[in-house]
Amino acid sequence: MLRMARMPILLFLVAGALCVPAGAAEAGATILVHDQEEYSRATADLKPGDRVILANGEWRDFEMVFAGRGTSDDPISLTAETAGQVIITGQSNLRVSGSNIVVSGLVFKDGYSPTGEVISFRTSKTDLATDSRVTQVVIDRFNQPDRLQTDYWVALSGKRNRFDHSSLIGKTNAGVTLAVLLDEEGSRENGHRIDHNYFGPRPVLGSNGGETIRVGTSAYSMYDSKSVIENNVFDRCDGEVEIISIKSGANIVRGNLFLESRGSLTLRHGDGNLVDRNVFLGKGVEHTGGIRVINRNQTVRGNYLEGVAGDGFASALAIMNGVPNSPIHRYVQVQNALIENNTIVDSARMSLGTGADAERSAAPVGSKLRNNLFLFDGLGSRILIESSISGIAFSGNRIVAHPPLADMQGVTEQSVATTRANNGLLYAVDPALADVGAPRNLKLASIDDVGAPWYPKPKRASTFGGGSSIQVPLGENTLGEAIGRAKEGDRLLLAEGSYRVDRTLVVNKSISIEGASAARRSVIRFSRPSLFEMGVGGNLRLVQVEIDGSEAPDAVGNAVIRTSTKPMPAGFEIELDKVDVRGLSVNKAFDVITLGKGSLADRITIANSRFRDITGAVVAADAETDDLGRYNADYVTIRKSEFTNVGNAIVSLYRGGTDESTFGPHLLFEDNRVVRCGHAERRGEAATLALHGVQHALIERSVFEGSAPLRVVQTTGNPATLISGNTFKNTPRPILTESIAKGPVRVTMQQNTFDGSGP
Amino acid sequence: MLRMARMPILLFLVAGALCVPAGAAEAGATILVHDQEEYSRATADLKPGDRVILANGEWRDFEMVFAGRGTSDDPISLTAETAGQVIITGQSNLRVSGSNIVVSGLVFKDGYSPTGEVISFRTSKTDLATDSRVTQVVIDRFNQPDRLQTDYWVALSGKRNRFDHSSLIGKTNAGVTLAVLLDEEGSRENGHRIDHNYFGPRPVLGSNGGETIRVGTSAYSMYDSKSVIENNVFDRCDGEVEIISIKSGANIVRGNLFLESRGSLTLRHGDGNLVDRNVFLGKGVEHTGGIRVINRNQTVRGNYLEGVAGDGFASALAIMNGVPNSPIHRYVQVQNALIENNTIVDSARMSLGTGADAERSAAPVGSKLRNNLFLFDGLGSRILIESSISGIAFSGNRIVAHPPLADMQGVTEQSVATTRANNGLLYAVDPALADVGAPRNLKLASIDDVGAPWYPKPKRASTFGGGSSIQVPLGENTLGEAIGRAKEGDRLLLAEGSYRVDRTLVVNKSISIEGASAARRSVIRFSRPSLFEMGVGGNLRLVQVEIDGSEAPDAVGNAVIRTSTKPMPAGFEIELDKVDVRGLSVNKAFDVITLGKGSLADRITIANSRFRDITGAVVAADAETDDLGRYNADYVTIRKSEFTNVGNAIVSLYRGGTDESTFGPHLLFEDNRVVRCGHAERRGEAATLALHGVQHALIERSVFEGSAPLRVVQTTGNPATLISGNTFKNTPRPILTESIAKGPVRVTMQQNTFDGSGP
Repeated sequence: MLRMARMPILLFLVAGALCVPAGAAEAGATILVHDQEEYSRATADLKPGDRVILANGEWRDFEMVFAGRGTSDDPISLTAETAGQVIITGQSNLRVSGSNIVVSGLVFKDGYSPTGEVISFRTSKTDLATDSRVTQVVIDRFNQPDRLQTDYWVALSGKRNRFDHSSLIGKTNAGVTLAVLLDEEGSRENGHRIDHNYFGPRPVLGSNGGETIRVGTSAYSMYDSKSVIENNVFDRCDGEVEIISIKSGANIVRGNLFLESRGSLTLRHGDGNLVDRNVFLGKGVEHTGGIRVINRNQTVRGNYLEGVAGDGFASALAIMNGVPNSPIHRYVQVQNALIENNTIVDSARMSLGTGADAERSAAPVGSKLRNNLFLFDGLGSRILIESSISGIAFSGNRIVAHPPLADMQGVTEQSVATTRANNGLLYAVDPALADVGAPRNLKLASIDDVGAPWYPKPKRASTFGGGSSIQVPLGENTLGEAIGRAKEGDRLLLAEGSYRVDRTLVVNKSISIEGASAARRSVIRFSRPSLFEMGVGGNLRLVQVEIDGSEAPDAVGNAVIRTSTKPMPAGFEIELDKVDVRGLSVNKAFDVITLGKGSLADRITIANSRFRDITGAVVAADAETDDLGRYNADYVTIRKSEFTNVGNAIVSLYRGGTDESTFGPHLLFEDNRVVRCGHAERRGEAATLALHGVQHALIERSVFEGSAPLRVVQTTGNPATLISGNTFKNTPRPILTESIAKGPVRVTMQQNTFDGSGP
Repeated sequence: MLRMARMPILLFLVAGALCVPAGAAEAGATILVHDQEEYSRATADLKPGDRVILANGEWRDFEMVFAGRGTSDDPISLTAETAGQVIITGQSNLRVSGSNIVVSGLVFKDGYSPTGEVISFRTSKTDLATDSRVTQVVIDRFNQPDRLQTDYWVALSGKRNRFDHSSLIGKTNAGVTLAVLLDEEGSRENGHRIDHNYFGPRPVLGSNGGETIRVGTSAYSMYDSKSVIENNVFDRCDGEVEIISIKSGANIVRGNLFLESRGSLTLRHGDGNLVDRNVFLGKGVEHTGGIRVINRNQTVRGNYLEGVAGDGFASALAIMNGVPNSPIHRYVQVQNALIENNTIVDSARMSLGTGADAERSAAPVGSKLRNNLFLFDGLGSRILIESSISGIAFSGNRIVAHPPLADMQGVTEQSVATTRANNGLLYAVDPALADVGAPRNLKLASIDDVGAPWYPKPKRASTFGGGSSIQVPLGENTLGEAIGRAKEGDRLLLAEGSYRVDRTLVVNKSISIEGASAARRSVIRFSRPSLFEMGVGGNLRLVQVEIDGSEAPDAVGNAVIRTSTKPMPAGFEIELDKVDVRGLSVNKAFDVITLGKGSLADRITIANSRFRDITGAVVAADAETDDLGRYNADYVTIRKSEFTNVGNAIVSLYRGGTDESTFGPHLLFEDNRVVRCGHAERRGEAATLALHGVQHALIERSVFEGSAPLRVVQTTGNPATLISGNTFKNTPRPILTESIAKGPVRVTMQQNTFDGSGP
């Protein structure tokens, strides 16, 4: 491997040379190519030691095939004239096959792959790569324009390949970021190494298929993969409930750092995997998880988890229940697991028998849990036992700040003095406890040591603000012109008076539109079916404005704000604060916010606002009715607002499908007042709030008067729904149903008041 | 008006002159402008007699405002250097206000309006045009890219304006082609004249909002409009059930020709309208209609209708039942209608009391039907009496080839000798019948006399064929390359053997892909979630090919053929003949054809094909679940095909909403064999065929074995559903429901065989 490490230096030496004939001491030719035709000629018949160098600049619509047979002494290489200055754009990809190939220095951005992979270690179904390496490449937001179109950014096939020191940043479309494929026999027991990579932010996908790494699939999970995933950093990898999904045997996941990443490292299928010396720093971010154990002969050793806030599947440590005689795609019972020398600090949950239900009835057996250190904070965090734990032998564990657990022998609750070591992690001070918890010599992966060293890593930034404040004069289309000229983060300040808008305003940056004051009203009227369209890159905040829908066209399905009908990436936000909306009544189904098919809002936040005389919904987030596990809004929050005479449900939030891949959607509805709402039927039902498959819902301290019932349909996962402290006047009781699970409906109703009879 | 008729000649005389100063004899300046800046300067302060001339060429993203006060002697004009050679493209429109304005010679194409109108007779909500004229303009497929976005191509406001000799061709997006607006007081009793226009083909919209002309809206229908629509030609205006929708009083619709146009001239709201001397030539095309009468004091006189094939709302003549004390947006009872001297020839239906139901219970009163001539063909065509006709006085009518109608005094059934006159229309030979039927001097509008004379009118063309035959070599991606190179109408001929496709193939032209022969199999495998994507302008025919889904990715929601996720226009076709599809089973919900949200297929036709081991649907046309009256396929035809182990419904066809604006969707399912299909639940229900709101369904001579039930939900309109001559083995009986109407379910079941018990 030392030879590899010299490569970048070598590259700088040859840069600029058009064609350097092979010297006596070195095999192969070095060829600098400037266009795709030169590339084709240079790669037509590659010999050991050949070096193909892409000239600096932009290479557009470039489907690179790089195939040949090098030797371990004389590999064949493809690289950049200057690392990081060869930019692959448009509809491009890279396919590698043969042996002893090395690719480095390329940046993929401003485009997407026309096939199912950006980088593939095979050039056809049967032409695979072996002993090859892709190092120091970058794939930066190289997303399919339609976020529901799946692809892999990196697909590893063949044997003994390495993918390292690369940066994979901002995948927003469906499909695993890096997949190890086992579908061909020549790709099993592969010994691949995936190391020192920077896996950058991946936003919530809102469906299955958002894993950052997956090794195998259920269909081939009986095979050993023998892949090693080590010393990588996972930074805000939030795609779905599984960050790494191991679906094969005999893999090693070692020495990785998980930073504020929602989801967990999941041993989903396959046996005999080792999870060793990884560090999870959740920093209290919701749904950050740890390690989830399923199947046989798994070892989880020496890991450190702190501030991990998730529960259920995303517990710091979750040992699942299995399905007796499980089909290959379900849950094999945990057998012979060894969980030792892990430390869990200030995390919400350790869960044993996770997911136990009528189907998952097989508790763990033959397993050991020993010498672990559990430092709970006493604030709601705890060990949750969901099934029998008689099949788990406990020994030598220490637990702090937890109520007694009668069932768990070998788990001793006692105060343990701790201190932070030089590596920043907490350890017991007492030398007698040196063998309890994570090892003293655990080394954190550093964000500076991973990824392509010459490529910057993304910073954290807030959605709104950071721009200029711009006065918008009263009049017709002044607002549209101001939005057209505005820059990212600008605030558009309205005057007192009236604005007319005769076209739909496309929001493709973060914009805040703010009225004069509560007393001096800024009123917006519009004559198109929508006032705002959320486009690619758009976020919208409205503050203290009044919106009057009375001049909208007499047609069904208008909306004040709707999403683009073109595909759009996930992650946009809409915020309404102190907004008055009225007169959306010219025809049926006139919504305030309509989230269309394929869209996923990160956050819809409404506070201190008033809505009156609206024939549609306030938030219609129910376009994913094909039940593929998708949904349209991750967090919907509505607080301190008033709703009068809203025809459809104030919020309709739909998540269909039966997979358990998402943490969302979430609804918070509190301190609101609702009068005469929800009476217009939609799909044959009247509802004031219509929730289907919502994973987290809190409806509290609100007053519902003369309105249609709340409707909650629970589907999959482990939904948490609390309806608390509300007053229902002349409003029927909530209608609560389970669509799949048997038994009582999983909704908690408490301290609600019912007054009068429903209409 | 003579002066106007000279205008084009005048234009040719001034062409090429940059600036002709006003002579002594003529007021105003003539200014030739070359760009938008010159235009702005030239139009800043228009005076009577001013002429602004747009230089020949393309004007892109040009929002023209043309406002000024001319006089009847010295109008202000905007025109083209050469009529037809000024092309307005991109995001452009024209707004006119003031008085005595004349615009002519412009062509709008290759773009769309950024606002709600392409041509508007006002420049703001209060600045209207009077005594102004737009003549000899063309709007050709100037459609919003999202076909569900509404706009008007022409919006008439103000008073005494004229729109004439113009061509409006190929509107595919929602919204009325030409609307007369009455929302401002200054636009009522307007005396507008809409004449000598060519209204070219408008395809089925698949929802409300596809009218070609609308005068008023329900909200203002108590006002008189006094508009005149005369001497226009409507050629294949198929947008929805109303071609012309009169929603105001005292209008005249006179001397127009309706050619093969689906839908009818509808007196929807408002009283005292006159429908005089129009000619309807349906040529037997399905759903071609005539005149539909609602409201008070309507006169229908001297019209001629031949070959009109529609029934119900689209009957040659439909006199509707009303709603007692009707709200303004429902149906006012027919009172004091005069229907005289009309001729109906070889048409399917005349209907009295049309639409009678529990709500529409008020039969026509105080009305007269006299001196009409009804020449039926005796082949199923007939007069249908749906309610009491005691409020209609009949006198002097003649009826041929119809069974006796006891209720209708004054309607005499007798043989009448007829002959075609020079105008091509049929008349009774007997001079004693000279006063019966349409007038002898009725003059047909000619297609040559309408529209912009210098602009061609669209021809009829078949969807597939007309191109070259191209051999596609076996291999990987050879098919994709062939499609990329193919031209409109090409046939791609496959060899015997295997084709692999690693990307989704976008179909944006009419393409036919044809296998070698039944014996020499051409097999296509694909590795992306979809093999084909229907793009803008695409039509796809597959003949004698085999499609194997086994290499598709392991993800939910794959499809062999799906529509673009970008907005697409209506009217595409997919045809499968002798096609074998199998192995669509790698994950859930793998469809053969998925029609996505916002798409509308004109025709999906499957014949002589076989489908086996499919987890999804064969035709999923059920994305419009927001119940706005939209749907995804107008005609689905499946014949002589076999289905084995298809998980979801073979066809799922959904049309929600309660409006009665569409003739579709239609399903024909005959002579098929279905084994073990429909058992996978979708939205909680298992079905072999899932029909919701389908307007026409014929399911006949098919065998269903070990399959889930057929499910039919009837919603709105007057659905025709016949389930006939089928055999059900170990398959439950069809589940038939009405979602709105009370009473028995409107499905006819006959001669079906039930054998064994359902699973």
